[in-house]
Amino acid sequence: MGEMGFDLTLFHVASIIISILAFGVAVWLYRWVASRPSSNKKVAEVGQLIKNGANTFLAKEYKVLTKFTIAVALLILVFLPSPIWKGDILANITMAVSYIFGTVFSAIAGKIGISIATIANVKSAEAATKGIKPSFMAGYRGGAVMGMAVVGSSLLGVTLVLMITGNTSALLGFSFGASSLALFAKAGGGIFTKTADVSADLAGKVELGIPEDDPRNPAVIADNVGDNVGDVAGMGADLFDSNVASMAAALVMAASLANAEKNMAMVLCYAGIGLLASIIGVFTANMKEGGDPTRALNMNTYVTTAIYAVLTAVATYAFDFNWRIWGASAVGLAVGTVIGIASDYFTNDNKKPVHMVAKACESGPAFTITSGVSYGLLSTLPAMVGIGISALAAYKIVAPLGAGGNEVAYGMFGISMAAVGMLSIVGMIISNDAYGPIVDNARGLVEMGDLGDKALEITDSLDSAGNTVKAVTKGFSIGAAGLTVIALLGAFITEVNDAVDLMGGVDAFGKTIEKITGFDVTDPIVFFGLLVGAAIPPVFSAMLMLGVDRNAQRMISEIHRQFREIVGLKEGKPGVKPEYDKCIEIATDGALKELIPAGLVAIVSTLIVGFVGGVQAVGGFITGNIVSGLIFALFMSNAGGLWDNTKKYIEAGNHGGKNSEAHKAGVVGDTVGDPFKDTAGPSINTQITVVSLVASIMATIFLTFSLF
Amino acid sequence: MGEMGFDLTLFHVASIIISILAFGVAVWLYRWVASRPSSNKKVAEVGQLIKNGANTFLAKEYKVLTKFTIAVALLILVFLPSPIWKGDILANITMAVSYIFGTVFSAIAGKIGISIATIANVKSAEAATKGIKPSFMAGYRGGAVMGMAVVGSSLLGVTLVLMITGNTSALLGFSFGASSLALFAKAGGGIFTKTADVSADLAGKVELGIPEDDPRNPAVIADNVGDNVGDVAGMGADLFDSNVASMAAALVMAASLANAEKNMAMVLCYAGIGLLASIIGVFTANMKEGGDPTRALNMNTYVTTAIYAVLTAVATYAFDFNWRIWGASAVGLAVGTVIGIASDYFTNDNKKPVHMVAKACESGPAFTITSGVSYGLLSTLPAMVGIGISALAAYKIVAPLGAGGNEVAYGMFGISMAAVGMLSIVGMIISNDAYGPIVDNARGLVEMGDLGDKALEITDSLDSAGNTVKAVTKGFSIGAAGLTVIALLGAFITEVNDAVDLMGGVDAFGKTIEKITGFDVTDPIVFFGLLVGAAIPPVFSAMLMLGVDRNAQRMISEIHRQFREIVGLKEGKPGVKPEYDKCIEIATDGALKELIPAGLVAIVSTLIVGFVGGVQAVGGFITGNIVSGLIFALFMSNAGGLWDNTKKYIEAGNHGGKNSEAHKAGVVGDTVGDPFKDTAGPSINTQITVVSLVASIMATIFLTFSLF
Repeated sequence: MGEMGFDLTLFHVASIIISILAFGVAVWLYRWVASRPSSNKKVAEVGQLIKNGANTFLAKEYKVLTKFTIAVALLILVFLPSPIWKGDILANITMAVSYIFGTVFSAIAGKIGISIATIANVKSAEAATKGIKPSFMAGYRGGAVMGMAVVGSSLLGVTLVLMITGNTSALLGFSFGASSLALFAKAGGGIFTKTADVSADLAGKVELGIPEDDPRNPAVIADNVGDNVGDVAGMGADLFDSNVASMAAALVMAASLANAEKNMAMVLCYAGIGLLASIIGVFTANMKEGGDPTRALNMNTYVTTAIYAVLTAVATYAFDFNWRIWGASAVGLAVGTVIGIASDYFTNDNKKPVHMVAKACESGPAFTITSGVSYGLLSTLPAMVGIGISALAAYKIVAPLGAGGNEVAYGMFGISMAAVGMLSIVGMIISNDAYGPIVDNARGLVEMGDLGDKALEITDSLDSAGNTVKAVTKGFSIGAAGLTVIALLGAFITEVNDAVDLMGGVDAFGKTIEKITGFDVTDPIVFFGLLVGAAIPPVFSAMLMLGVDRNAQRMISEIHRQFREIVGLKEGKPGVKPEYDKCIEIATDGALKELIPAGLVAIVSTLIVGFVGGVQAVGGFITGNIVSGLIFALFMSNAGGLWDNTKKYIEAGNHGGKNSEAHKAGVVGDTVGDPFKDTAGPSINTQITVVSLVASIMATIFLTFSLF
Repeated sequence: MGEMGFDLTLFHVASIIISILAFGVAVWLYRWVASRPSSNKKVAEVGQLIKNGANTFLAKEYKVLTKFTIAVALLILVFLPSPIWKGDILANITMAVSYIFGTVFSAIAGKIGISIATIANVKSAEAATKGIKPSFMAGYRGGAVMGMAVVGSSLLGVTLVLMITGNTSALLGFSFGASSLALFAKAGGGIFTKTADVSADLAGKVELGIPEDDPRNPAVIADNVGDNVGDVAGMGADLFDSNVASMAAALVMAASLANAEKNMAMVLCYAGIGLLASIIGVFTANMKEGGDPTRALNMNTYVTTAIYAVLTAVATYAFDFNWRIWGASAVGLAVGTVIGIASDYFTNDNKKPVHMVAKACESGPAFTITSGVSYGLLSTLPAMVGIGISALAAYKIVAPLGAGGNEVAYGMFGISMAAVGMLSIVGMIISNDAYGPIVDNARGLVEMGDLGDKALEITDSLDSAGNTVKAVTKGFSIGAAGLTVIALLGAFITEVNDAVDLMGGVDAFGKTIEKITGFDVTDPIVFFGLLVGAAIPPVFSAMLMLGVDRNAQRMISEIHRQFREIVGLKEGKPGVKPEYDKCIEIATDGALKELIPAGLVAIVSTLIVGFVGGVQAVGGFITGNIVSGLIFALFMSNAGGLWDNTKKYIEAGNHGGKNSEAHKAGVVGDTVGDPFKDTAGPSINTQITVVSLVASIMATIFLTFSLF
């Protein structure tokens, strides 16, 4: 069946060239943004404070994570893929190095994001004095630097690991490195940003009645730092991780099929075209003076999607790839768009849900919460059905290629290609996503730098567009994570069966072990895993939210202390400044303290289930984790976005406008929604990927040692 | 292998005798309660208002449900278990009649519960003027009438259907009748009670600052009616349903094994002993003057549990039953207790979670919500792990009996026996559960009848014990529902395979159909079902909560209108009374309007998935439904109980006590928690049972007609 002599090298080289092109574009955009004019001293000063704060957090975080990485790398070296005294030492070294490589690439992408975001915010703020167009372009191109860097480095990393090791299992190690870092970056950044945001709002806006981003508020710099470390660095790590995981899953499965080289070439080719399409999309991004920023952002996405669909069809024709596989990837992209539209419906302030929740606000905060929770729960349905249908369709489209006994393997490969398709335009998604916190920061700088009402109005409208687009991109990334982890379930089976082959069908104790074909829920071991796996996302998100609560209470005490002890601060006496550093320190230390237990719960529970119930229990565990993880990620992201926009809708003058009873209730909803949408919700994505990857790289161990 | 000549008749007769004994006890208790002294005219008058309101609701509800039941019965008659023009007409008639039988039994149990509860509330209120003991006994024995009636009628109904039809599939029809009624009774009652409760609190306590249960409040009678229709009739229907479903699942599987008669005898024997143990428990229930009502309630549960364990061991020895099966039922009971204790931890006001949430209340309502949500999410872990372990243990204990190829069937039977074990003491659980709303009502009557501060204090302490015990019993019933539906998954497979046999392995279009052995999640059809099934409980609970919101907004407008238009009402001018009936009418009509769509979503989504994906998709659908249903039921029940007790803890003088800022935040939490714990959470139990039963009775149809 195999087509001999299909040469993968061309695609390796092409991937590397496109990755380097993306880096080139990133550098060009970086320089473009950096060369925008900036002259205001006050803005520069505050911008510097934000930059320092973000870098301080990142340095501390990376220090903690370095220790964690070294510890895990040592464990991998000794135990994975199989204990060093049993298997091939070289395989362990490869896995450990790939793992480290994954963490480093992810960390670098985060660092680049922070660097540009803390420049672009200043530029966008000052440009706002000249008009909406230059301000938008500074923010957007700043975000695009992040987009290009993340996607370029993920494609480059995957290609290099593949070329150097020639081993797709090493890709799982690389992917695990990326996602273990992402887990902590997302969770840590998420705790930081919401600690600062919630504390600044409650102690500032609610208790003292001073405006958002007022420089008297000791937490205001921490709040702006939070946008960067949570929404830029954390989000970037998260999508780096999803992107790598989707490619890794597809490549692992492609390698186990007939025509392995050609299938692997397709994965690289489609991923490369996605990046190319995103590059074109970024350059065509434009906006007229007086135009609508939301429309501009969405237009880029559509342009990129169309370019991707056309170019992949051309490539499929040119390289004689299989059209069924192309179909699977197109299904993924189409369903991603549908999920994005559904998320938009539930969070957009022109739609019914926001209007209903805003009306409920008139009856007080309890109704704000129950109606927001209800719409958040309803919002899970279209996405769950969409993911289900796309997985089913992708499977059914590709499965016939394995006619004659190999349908399952091809079907699962189809699902992984749908995930690759959905994530193909991730460069665009990240650019749009990183735009949000940059212009949010710019708004803060305009306020703190007294750049005038017109500039404030402009950055307000840019910020609001960022919020709306964020809901869509979040829906997209949750959907993609869902498909990716379904594909990873297939990768897990592949890993288990490879291990069975390697061990000659006998485990460490001489017991016979058999290949697996799937996970039957009527097997009580699988069901046991399923129930425990389903409980992990709620527990994980609860731990993160409690972390934010504890941390915010510490920070609020600190804000109260400063207002009490620093003479003239409350009154805004010239020259009197709050101690911004103290708040940044509290947010940083608290986030680092709180993120480790939550992250460990995800990893350790996988190990416990694996050692108790073996690979069948782990299969159930991953499945339960995916199912409940998707529901909670969708629920929390959408409910949070809904409350955020409800508050803004009321502030725009509806139901009594600012300072009405409805507004107070809306603020409560927004405060509840903050940790939902920016801490817990998006971290669950990463949590389910980590669980799947831990399971895959531990496959041999679980086969060898388990209670049942 | 079969032991020939094992005679089931003895156990049929014994079950009927024990059921009748339970009815006798119910009548005796009823008369005992009714003969308690009552003389206060005002209390009698208000009591009559409550009774009339509850009966009005029940009459209207049953009228709607009669139409629904007739429609479904006709559909069953034509289509189930197989279309009337294809299969055996007698089978269809049997199924339809069993279905109607199930709804009628359930309706009668609800009616009996309402009758006694609306007497016992008055008696308990007046007895409170004499001391805590007589007040407790009136409330407790009133609850016990409901307990005896529900369990007696479920055992009687199951036995009669089995004796008359000799057909275990008919049991599924009976069970479906019970649960379709329960679905609407629980959802409808849940919407009614929370509409009234939330409206009375918000418009009365919060806006006007009048005390709870103040007779000036137009919603106060509706609130007390709600306790009866939601917490007595709804809860009774729910547990009637769970109890019937667990027995039906166990009997269906027992009938398909070797030694069918003996296994079926075990199920009836254990269920009968459970009822007997509950009867003894009810009679030993006592309390010293000045004793702790919580302790008294819990003590009954422990006594019943011990009696059950001993008596079943004796019976197992006497009738030479299999000890492994006894072991499975003991595991169920043990784990039920563990889950109850875990629920208690998360909701008891002596434990850390309540204290932490109470502290968070000081920082405002947003923190009340996020911390409560967090602890609610954490609370799912012990129960999910507990259910997982008990299912695994019960399976592993019993599976060896099927050595030689039949392990799966025996293992699933083991799980169903764990469910029977967990529900064995359900008579006790219902008695404790129904006690809660009775003494809650008594508290209202004491307030409205001006029976004095001492009586108020007594009923307050009885009410608080009811709340604490409720958390435990709810954990118990969610755990039991979990095990039952896992067992129903086994029953579904049995039904499908029976249908394949019946149809000779060929479907309506001549296509070959095969027996199934399980549901593999790596089959994309199963995974599709899994994702959709998991989305149903969140959607279902969201619809119920939105129903409560909409309804409460209508009722609050009505309360405002009355205070505006009825002269002297606000000031409490003697002789001026609010129009209680209007509020009862709004709650009733709203509940009936809102319950149908939510109930239909559960049923119709099962049908859609079945017709699209066939039996494999339905297997996945049930599984996803169980997993997410358990998580949301646990989360919502526990978070709601936690907020309720947090508010009470603050009212007891902590963190500033009544009318402090913390208290206001606590009230918001409690108001959010009300629909969580009394509308959505407990209805999910019934929803998952209904889905499983619809799937089982539709097995033949799904086999015959489906897209994939």
